[in-house]
Amino acid sequence: MLNELYRPPLALLTDLYQLTMAYGYWKLGRDNQQAVFHLFFRKPPFNGGYAIAAGLAQAIEYMRGYRFDDSDIEYLASLTGNDDQALFDDGFLDYLSKMKLQVDVDAMPEGTLAFGSQPMLRIRGPILQCQLLETPLLNIVNFQTLIATKASRIAASAAGEPILEFGLRRSQGIDGSLSASRAAHIGGCAATSNVLAGKMYGIPVKGTHAHSWVMSFDTEAESFANYADAMPNNCVFLVDTYDTIQGVREAVKAGIQLRNRGHEMVGIRLDSGDLAYLSIEARRILDEGGFENAAIVASNDLDEHIIESLKIQGAKITVWGVGTKLATAFDQPALGGVYKLGALQDDQGNWQPKVKLSEQLIKTSIPGTLQVRRFEKNGQMIGDMIYDEDMGVNPSLEIVDTKDPTRRKRFPSEATASDLLVPVMRDGVPTGPPEEISTIRERAINQLTRLHPTSRRLLNPHEYPVGLDVDLNRVRNEMIDAARKTS
Amino acid sequence: MLNELYRPPLALLTDLYQLTMAYGYWKLGRDNQQAVFHLFFRKPPFNGGYAIAAGLAQAIEYMRGYRFDDSDIEYLASLTGNDDQALFDDGFLDYLSKMKLQVDVDAMPEGTLAFGSQPMLRIRGPILQCQLLETPLLNIVNFQTLIATKASRIAASAAGEPILEFGLRRSQGIDGSLSASRAAHIGGCAATSNVLAGKMYGIPVKGTHAHSWVMSFDTEAESFANYADAMPNNCVFLVDTYDTIQGVREAVKAGIQLRNRGHEMVGIRLDSGDLAYLSIEARRILDEGGFENAAIVASNDLDEHIIESLKIQGAKITVWGVGTKLATAFDQPALGGVYKLGALQDDQGNWQPKVKLSEQLIKTSIPGTLQVRRFEKNGQMIGDMIYDEDMGVNPSLEIVDTKDPTRRKRFPSEATASDLLVPVMRDGVPTGPPEEISTIRERAINQLTRLHPTSRRLLNPHEYPVGLDVDLNRVRNEMIDAARKTS
Repeated sequence: MLNELYRPPLALLTDLYQLTMAYGYWKLGRDNQQAVFHLFFRKPPFNGGYAIAAGLAQAIEYMRGYRFDDSDIEYLASLTGNDDQALFDDGFLDYLSKMKLQVDVDAMPEGTLAFGSQPMLRIRGPILQCQLLETPLLNIVNFQTLIATKASRIAASAAGEPILEFGLRRSQGIDGSLSASRAAHIGGCAATSNVLAGKMYGIPVKGTHAHSWVMSFDTEAESFANYADAMPNNCVFLVDTYDTIQGVREAVKAGIQLRNRGHEMVGIRLDSGDLAYLSIEARRILDEGGFENAAIVASNDLDEHIIESLKIQGAKITVWGVGTKLATAFDQPALGGVYKLGALQDDQGNWQPKVKLSEQLIKTSIPGTLQVRRFEKNGQMIGDMIYDEDMGVNPSLEIVDTKDPTRRKRFPSEATASDLLVPVMRDGVPTGPPEEISTIRERAINQLTRLHPTSRRLLNPHEYPVGLDVDLNRVRNEMIDAARKTS
Repeated sequence: MLNELYRPPLALLTDLYQLTMAYGYWKLGRDNQQAVFHLFFRKPPFNGGYAIAAGLAQAIEYMRGYRFDDSDIEYLASLTGNDDQALFDDGFLDYLSKMKLQVDVDAMPEGTLAFGSQPMLRIRGPILQCQLLETPLLNIVNFQTLIATKASRIAASAAGEPILEFGLRRSQGIDGSLSASRAAHIGGCAATSNVLAGKMYGIPVKGTHAHSWVMSFDTEAESFANYADAMPNNCVFLVDTYDTIQGVREAVKAGIQLRNRGHEMVGIRLDSGDLAYLSIEARRILDEGGFENAAIVASNDLDEHIIESLKIQGAKITVWGVGTKLATAFDQPALGGVYKLGALQDDQGNWQPKVKLSEQLIKTSIPGTLQVRRFEKNGQMIGDMIYDEDMGVNPSLEIVDTKDPTRRKRFPSEATASDLLVPVMRDGVPTGPPEEISTIRERAINQLTRLHPTSRRLLNPHEYPVGLDVDLNRVRNEMIDAARKTS
């Protein structure tokens, strides 16, 4: 997985301020002070109603291979401050070179539906280590969650028809493509064009030929015939190099030749022009030619909105190729996930919840060692509660809205409840092997069926209820009042 | 560089259709047919007037390490078509496993200003190999060119004040962050927060502390004092954890203590609130406290437009931290670079130019083995000519606009001319060592001074003249006519 692709260690993949803070904690003898941090986003991306948690396997892989090697230490030793003296002293660098991760991580399994303000990961351990992990965990989880969510929206717009992910050439770097392919498959894409992603993550791969193949022959007919000769079991003819309608007719001819040799063409691909008009015409020509089962693959800057529109227009597209808009999450290319301190252990070993104020209530942090409890009734998700495990594991059945404290909701006692954060790492060691990607993908698809359709809607979705346990809400309000009085 | 980070080989980092086409060429005995492909974009990103070419070093590194290993071959052998039979036969897989890249690559050096329709890279070699390289070259060059250009715009908006790149936590994957840090530095950023990017690419790194540091102490004052104790030569105090104005006053107190110990605080950082108002107030408090030289670093969702606006408002910010909007190129997260066949060698060894038609003239490809000639006069760039080297290396002095053929321009004979594509790889071997990043960065900064300010403008820039050599234009028109008649 991650360490198959990269040469570890990747411990330096962090913001410098994590290392300068680590140095501060170490100098103060606080390096081992226990802390709890939560990783969460505030609002689902794309103005949507949900997100799909993804990236945990790579996050765990990152932590599993965590160490500073000699060249890392040497590099850190070379950094200087505004007096041209070294930033870090040798004792600290020696400490880093010997450090073993000792964190406990609880997380939502990948493929879990996640909502605003809920911890997707909870990291507990030495404050110095939790801090160093902040940036890489955000990098990995933010991006894959973003793309899994985008893929899920696109898959929803295609209403069951397969989506192929074609984003490699326009994605943001090598890992931007590989992680995108993985997350897109989790979110609902059927296959990818990215062969390395197929190999690394066990995702089906798809692809046939490009315009350059057609151009390299004297005629389109010759190019199709030669392709069919070479690869009779994988024929999707790209028909728009010169004239699309003529191209479809040539595909039919090539398909007949292929059939005479005992093979069936898979279909055709449209990559430009008016996809609604051309797909309807192509369907007619294919059907008249005896190719009622031939697929019509379409690509060209598609996203969930264009797919919805094409379906409304009656386009006869059966397979959707989606590239740039999916692999870069074009309309919102970053998830604003954050990583906030929830609690610190004091000298006596007691956990002290911590709060950071903000002008906006939604940006004021949630103190404690948080857990997320999901309530369901009749197989439908009815709401989530964020509670503080340090206050006991039997919270109330009543939640207070995180954005509007006047809104409350009480869950019926017959509702079933399950806690979403599960142990994935203890003392720096994974609790088990990584999940199969098929398991993760099925979880995402299954959970979506349990979310009310109005909350899955692409535009202006109904907001799924998420709130704080009333007791946590009360404690938080007291802490906010106290902090405001001090400052 | 690339291969320090990744475990090669990365030959599978391509679209499956490149491999199925390769298979077709191999089966037809055309694997060794010589071809020329060009990598270019059609329009500069962000509605801007230029782009900065970047990513070539990684592209060369990618090609240098090109090979299929046993596990790649095994994976390819496992792929099947719609009859559940293998896609590729053993002979082809054996061919791949023994294949050595034999391509010649000519490219714009990184940091060169690039405009629409101009080849940034030209790949000549066996068609099979050129095709396999299409996707990874696009992936690498598209993204870094995009980010270098974005960084250049942001640097321009700050008018000489340093930009720090803080994008790691929100960037698109691990390489999305590292490549972004590199390209951002090329485009004009002064430093990055990403320590691994600093180590790998020799970029200065910056960072001090976060809100969580402040929150981990009982008071803000205590947190500043402790930070200053630990790292007296790197003090930028983050002042907005509780109350920004009060935070600035605490920073002044910590700065005085620091000064008494023989150190000078670097400055303060604002990360929220009204940055115009707060920076003006902070400047006043710092100046009154005797810290006229203290920097005011600001961050919080900045981009070139917000920086311009803050400067118009008289904000007293001296260092700009830019993260998400830069590292993901938020307003246009993909450059639409393409890779098109220009010419093919026929059986007699003659080069035949190739053209792909489109409904839009700008999407109709440019045939030939292309070179870009830049004309300058009095140290200012006055226009670029695209010409076909197969038609001789002494083109005319007259260009025809690529989008509007009624527009022509003749360069004065006293103009100096230089060809932008230079040899970077011959027969699969780099022609020299990679350039220093400082050389590349200086090239970008230097070239920008030679582009007219109206073409550098962020909004509605004047279009820099780029056109086809009149002879190339004539040949292309003849080919388009011929192709239209055939189809």
